[in-house]
Amino acid sequence: MSLETILDLFTAHYRTAAVKTAIELDMFTAIATGANNVPDLAARCGAAERGVRVLCDYLTSIGLLTKEGERYILGPDAAAFLDTRSPVCFASMVSAMAGDTVLEGLRRLTPAVRAGGTVLPAGGVLAPDHPYWAEFARAVAPAGRFMGPLLATLLDVSGRGRMRCLDIAAGHGLYGIAVAAQNPQAEIVALDWPGVLTVARQHAEAAGVGDRYHTIAGSVFTEDLGEEYDLVLLTNFLPDFDATTCERLLARVYGALVPGGRAVALQYVLDDDRISKPVAAYLSLALLATTPGGDTYTFGDLDRMFRTAGFSQTELHELPPERVVIAHRSS
Amino acid sequence: MSLETILDLFTAHYRTAAVKTAIELDMFTAIATGANNVPDLAARCGAAERGVRVLCDYLTSIGLLTKEGERYILGPDAAAFLDTRSPVCFASMVSAMAGDTVLEGLRRLTPAVRAGGTVLPAGGVLAPDHPYWAEFARAVAPAGRFMGPLLATLLDVSGRGRMRCLDIAAGHGLYGIAVAAQNPQAEIVALDWPGVLTVARQHAEAAGVGDRYHTIAGSVFTEDLGEEYDLVLLTNFLPDFDATTCERLLARVYGALVPGGRAVALQYVLDDDRISKPVAAYLSLALLATTPGGDTYTFGDLDRMFRTAGFSQTELHELPPERVVIAHRSS
Repeated sequence: MSLETILDLFTAHYRTAAVKTAIELDMFTAIATGANNVPDLAARCGAAERGVRVLCDYLTSIGLLTKEGERYILGPDAAAFLDTRSPVCFASMVSAMAGDTVLEGLRRLTPAVRAGGTVLPAGGVLAPDHPYWAEFARAVAPAGRFMGPLLATLLDVSGRGRMRCLDIAAGHGLYGIAVAAQNPQAEIVALDWPGVLTVARQHAEAAGVGDRYHTIAGSVFTEDLGEEYDLVLLTNFLPDFDATTCERLLARVYGALVPGGRAVALQYVLDDDRISKPVAAYLSLALLATTPGGDTYTFGDLDRMFRTAGFSQTELHELPPERVVIAHRSS
Repeated sequence: MSLETILDLFTAHYRTAAVKTAIELDMFTAIATGANNVPDLAARCGAAERGVRVLCDYLTSIGLLTKEGERYILGPDAAAFLDTRSPVCFASMVSAMAGDTVLEGLRRLTPAVRAGGTVLPAGGVLAPDHPYWAEFARAVAPAGRFMGPLLATLLDVSGRGRMRCLDIAAGHGLYGIAVAAQNPQAEIVALDWPGVLTVARQHAEAAGVGDRYHTIAGSVFTEDLGEEYDLVLLTNFLPDFDATTCERLLARVYGALVPGGRAVALQYVLDDDRISKPVAAYLSLALLATTPGGDTYTFGDLDRMFRTAGFSQTELHELPPERVVIAHRSS
């Protein structure tokens, strides 16, 4: 038992703000490439020496940096994940987890707990074409780049010949793009808001699959989804909605699949006690703060939704840190 | 090395938001007094069941609560420090460390690092009579209640007979009040903004020393401080200013002391490497985000300031988690 534990919680938001600011100033890359004292960093990052000193000393105190004399050095976590030259740089993700929309939602968390859902205007991030999503798509692309090929492999798409894949709420698009990359006969249809599809299209062109990449701009609840899909991807999307809305959505998905087709939900899936693993613990709270009815679900919850929507069978797979539910439409 | 470490930093602000909301809804006290399942907590705290469930599951995931079936139980830290019935409840301090002014300052941390000081309007929290300080005085009163008697004892005020004590930026007033409580012949003059003095006056009356409690409303830089003080307290005040301003302030303090009098600075004092201990690490960053030139200082820095202002001798004392510098005016 310790008062320090409590004071650490009361000031935990300083950590997020500090690392976010250092990322926005690209300070980790600057340190890694030799601008490792206060004057050099200030010059390289366009910041005041006082600001740099205070920020870097703080980052040292929380273990991201070390200090030798006047020189700052990246710790191993910062070197691996926050230097933009790293192949596994995840720095951009801070703007998904701590961007202005999230900060405003959390600032109003108390009324959200009272109301049982977001008190942000117009349904929070579910407002049509909310600018959050294009920012989000760019921010979480490193996760998609990592997880996309793993998901495509799990789904064994390479050996299936001609196939049509609908990527709902495609975001950065990297899940559908991974399907196209592993199966040269796969045609991808990506659905999302117009500004988000711009990001997905860029990624598809960069991956060399642009000629098999088609898009539907708009809401998954109202646009014509097309039909005869062999595969429908729902990556990190169902948690944005309450269970009833999820069932309505899955019924539309069911209707768009060929007999024997598969709908695939990739997301954090809770254990039955509903207590998240630490790394995903923030997610339910984020959904409470920024959506009207979003939630994290157990496999039991998801299985019920898919079956209500008409699916005959579901499977649960591990794809750490997330999980995958594959639901089958009967042949 | 672990990506989880990075994602934990990116989402650390959720912890602060969650514990702050639970405190605002007095949820820890509610759980401790028997409203320990979702429906009972929702009714007691005036919140939606969905909001309560998500919040309490999150608080469980970060270790403040445990869950047995449907029942939430306070962990030892929450029971000691967040239940308002506890004699060492520090819950109110969250509004000093994560209130709206601080959140707004941190939201603009990147431009503050660029500028080398706050970009909040009118000098941030140093704007005349800023409402932050009355909130701050109420919020950090538990720390004053704990530290005040320790400081008064360290200063050995009880055996000194008649004495005049000036408490600069008195805030909650509990340092000066502790001097009055340990020395029945001490007269206290508390200086602060008018709204803050209301808080200090309430505490003085509650402590039964109101008849020896006098006030000066306004700025320490412009008001007549009076004279012939045996003791001047500067508790957690010098860090709000740059070194030059501190020296100017300390020269005024020197002039208000009797020969042989003491000026006393209680604050976090950095080691010479300037890397704060974790519990105080946030402070320099807070000062960067919310003041034009505030900073944390080493003992060497403070010694230099006091000597420049005319003091003949300084001593450093430990008063964990802070430190005390006692500066003497020659007899």
